Amino acid sequence: MSQKNYDFGLVGLGVMGRNFILNVADNNFSAFGHDLDEEKVNSLIQEGGDTSRVYASTDAKTFVNALSSPRKIMLLVPAGKVVDIVIEGLLPMLDKGDIIIDGGNSFYTDTDRREAYLKEKGIHFFGSGVSGGAKGARKGPSIMPGGDREAYKEVKPIFEAVSAKFKGEPCVAYLGNKSAGNYVKMVHNGIEYGMMQLTSEIYDLLKKAGGLSNEELHNVYTEWNNGRLQSFLVQITSEIFAQKDDKTDGMLVDKILDKAKQKGTGKWTSQNAMDLGIPVPTIDIAVSMREISALKEERIQADALYGRPTPAPIDKNELIKMAEEALYFAFINAYAQGLAQLTDASKEYNYELDLSVIAKIWRAGCIIRAELLEDISKAYVANKDLKNLLLSPLFVDKVQSTVPSARALVSYAAKSGIPVPGLSNSLTYFDAYTSSRLPLNLIQAQRDHFGSHTYERIDMEGIFHTEWE
Amino acid sequence: MSQKNYDFGLVGLGVMGRNFILNVADNNFSAFGHDLDEEKVNSLIQEGGDTSRVYASTDAKTFVNALSSPRKIMLLVPAGKVVDIVIEGLLPMLDKGDIIIDGGNSFYTDTDRREAYLKEKGIHFFGSGVSGGAKGARKGPSIMPGGDREAYKEVKPIFEAVSAKFKGEPCVAYLGNKSAGNYVKMVHNGIEYGMMQLTSEIYDLLKKAGGLSNEELHNVYTEWNNGRLQSFLVQITSEIFAQKDDKTDGMLVDKILDKAKQKGTGKWTSQNAMDLGIPVPTIDIAVSMREISALKEERIQADALYGRPTPAPIDKNELIKMAEEALYFAFINAYAQGLAQLTDASKEYNYELDLSVIAKIWRAGCIIRAELLEDISKAYVANKDLKNLLLSPLFVDKVQSTVPSARALVSYAAKSGIPVPGLSNSLTYFDAYTSSRLPLNLIQAQRDHFGSHTYERIDMEGIFHTEWE
Repeated sequence: MSQKNYDFGLVGLGVMGRNFILNVADNNFSAFGHDLDEEKVNSLIQEGGDTSRVYASTDAKTFVNALSSPRKIMLLVPAGKVVDIVIEGLLPMLDKGDIIIDGGNSFYTDTDRREAYLKEKGIHFFGSGVSGGAKGARKGPSIMPGGDREAYKEVKPIFEAVSAKFKGEPCVAYLGNKSAGNYVKMVHNGIEYGMMQLTSEIYDLLKKAGGLSNEELHNVYTEWNNGRLQSFLVQITSEIFAQKDDKTDGMLVDKILDKAKQKGTGKWTSQNAMDLGIPVPTIDIAVSMREISALKEERIQADALYGRPTPAPIDKNELIKMAEEALYFAFINAYAQGLAQLTDASKEYNYELDLSVIAKIWRAGCIIRAELLEDISKAYVANKDLKNLLLSPLFVDKVQSTVPSARALVSYAAKSGIPVPGLSNSLTYFDAYTSSRLPLNLIQAQRDHFGSHTYERIDMEGIFHTEWE
Repeated sequence: MSQKNYDFGLVGLGVMGRNFILNVADNNFSAFGHDLDEEKVNSLIQEGGDTSRVYASTDAKTFVNALSSPRKIMLLVPAGKVVDIVIEGLLPMLDKGDIIIDGGNSFYTDTDRREAYLKEKGIHFFGSGVSGGAKGARKGPSIMPGGDREAYKEVKPIFEAVSAKFKGEPCVAYLGNKSAGNYVKMVHNGIEYGMMQLTSEIYDLLKKAGGLSNEELHNVYTEWNNGRLQSFLVQITSEIFAQKDDKTDGMLVDKILDKAKQKGTGKWTSQNAMDLGIPVPTIDIAVSMREISALKEERIQADALYGRPTPAPIDKNELIKMAEEALYFAFINAYAQGLAQLTDASKEYNYELDLSVIAKIWRAGCIIRAELLEDISKAYVANKDLKNLLLSPLFVDKVQSTVPSARALVSYAAKSGIPVPGLSNSLTYFDAYTSSRLPLNLIQAQRDHFGSHTYERIDMEGIFHTEWE
């Protein structure tokens, strides 16, 4: 049934891979899939319909031989050793000039290592983030390629065709050197962690303090999604509150266990930000909260030991209004942190990123797509060297007008024993970042006192040490 | 002037090394130092006085030949490559059975690597944290050895003699397998970062909201240090507020630049906690705040763009009282996080740590020494398997009685635009850890919605996936 000269090859027919290949075929390119799982292969062939457009095989040789030259092979397999194993398996069958694209969430240093390794063998290799989940892969994801620019040009027509479109513009662009594609996708996911944490704690506040029912929550998030909070995550949150449980009478969200899993990209974002020296506390705390959520047994024990204040009465409509403003404020701060990390990483790793391009390709297709990204792209178009979104004149009013609600809700939640760690870290990030004077002079004094680590002064140049009394 | 058979050798005659060697000599052991810097060598010889007790050389061979067998050589050099270079330099001159002790802040995996490497060559190697700053090294530090137990026994009499004493008990003990010593010291420093951040933001609050002068701050911290907050960091903070500037008329603390430096152990603690999946948000935010402090130019720009609320009037004495309670609450939470990390790391890396022993050797000598550690050691003596300090019956009242002030101050600070990120992260950590139900069910719903990542349920076993509408 198979023929030669398929335009595009894809290894890994999980949810993402299978959907991506069908998307490629929808866009008038022929695509050939490969997976060791026969069931996945057969079901793809069946769903593909026209075998001259979509075909697949469990046999690697059949797969490789079916692709037109230079071969364009995308990997959508779990990050880590599997990627290396797949590459080693393909390598003996490839020709010089063939192209391998890693579309998974590989760690950026792995991408750099693989690029160098494959270059020696005459094979082009580049990493390309793909975001949009299962539906995005099928209907149009945001795609974040970097690295080998010449190799990307070969794939560009296919990626532009399959990608999401924002007002007609494809949500894919060559982002920068080396592992830029995987790095940008990692930080995208870090911001995603922050936004997910924020939507979840605002839900908690609306429910515990405002007493909102799932139906009311559905309505509130739906309304928000029609305004400036418009975003994929707010949209699906509104849908989640409307989902009936098919196993019991109630709503599904109430039946789901409150232990959130993670696959590593949020953690990597935080860890790497620390290596760069870039503060991303909204992302850090989102990682921490997933960790705390996993300690369910300990939480139950601790809950029994400690009392909790009763939330003070609060006007429901006032609460909803403040929650919208606070969430908007915190989303801006989450983006600001991630984008600042990208700015710094670009210098550190010589990626030569253009943040306006990144903001543009995030406007549709990806998980963190949001109305806000249109303004963010404008901010970076207006100033390519913008050091932090909070410094953009386009954002001062947006932040200034919403921070009072963030203050009010952090204040209220602290007194009420309802943890809003993402919101409070967004607020303290803002308050610290906008403080020309912080109390860390004391920390430098302490360091000099106990460790003779020296300090600088505000009134004269130099490095000083004091023999403290 | 030199003779043979010195009891103890030390490489690296910086502030710590020089003081440690004088401490060894004070305790009736002879010690020989080595450093490439002639000035440091000469000044040590001069200060040592009796050359049969303290001597030093820039020549490695002279140094090695002067030590009794098996040689006991401690390195107090900067972490990283320098340690490897020093080891390689010594190696050809050593005999089998000699002992090298890394007393610096080496990363734990480096310690494991070096131990294995040197074992092949018949040399004993173990890592040993040393805390107490310059004065501690001179008068009695807290010492945290791990790894090669037999080799430690050779050094034990010296370490027990030079270490700080808490009610007569030496603040040194064999802590556990492999790199346990360096790992425990790393987490010690992580807790230290948290406590330093907390003392600094409480200072900010007292100054900005309460209008306290340096003299009043000195008095407040002094008084606190006479109570349950008694700790080295609170003590030196009180001293710092009394330090006159020798270059101008004012007080020194006001002249110090608010950019706090870091050397890496706090960052490592946070990054490693994320690898373990253990939440340490008070430590994370302390790292972030040092990073934000470094962005001084951006902060000045941002400050000019954004307004800041005027702190509401607050009774000064009431503020001081609440600050004491909140700081106590937050210190407990900082220890709780670090100790939970040690508990988990002990399992993950097979350290076999005994947390009651660790708490005991931290009671004197080290930077995080505090009255609280006496209670902490009791909590772990009472229950060796305590999963979190917050679960100890000895701590419930302490926390319960102080959390209202933490709530009040976080609430007040959020409204006033004074960032108290360490305190707020301690509070949200507490509120999340003591919540049997968190809103992360929504995050699992989101993950299943966009990525088919599945979820668990509260009412039945299994892994579920929903086709969301």
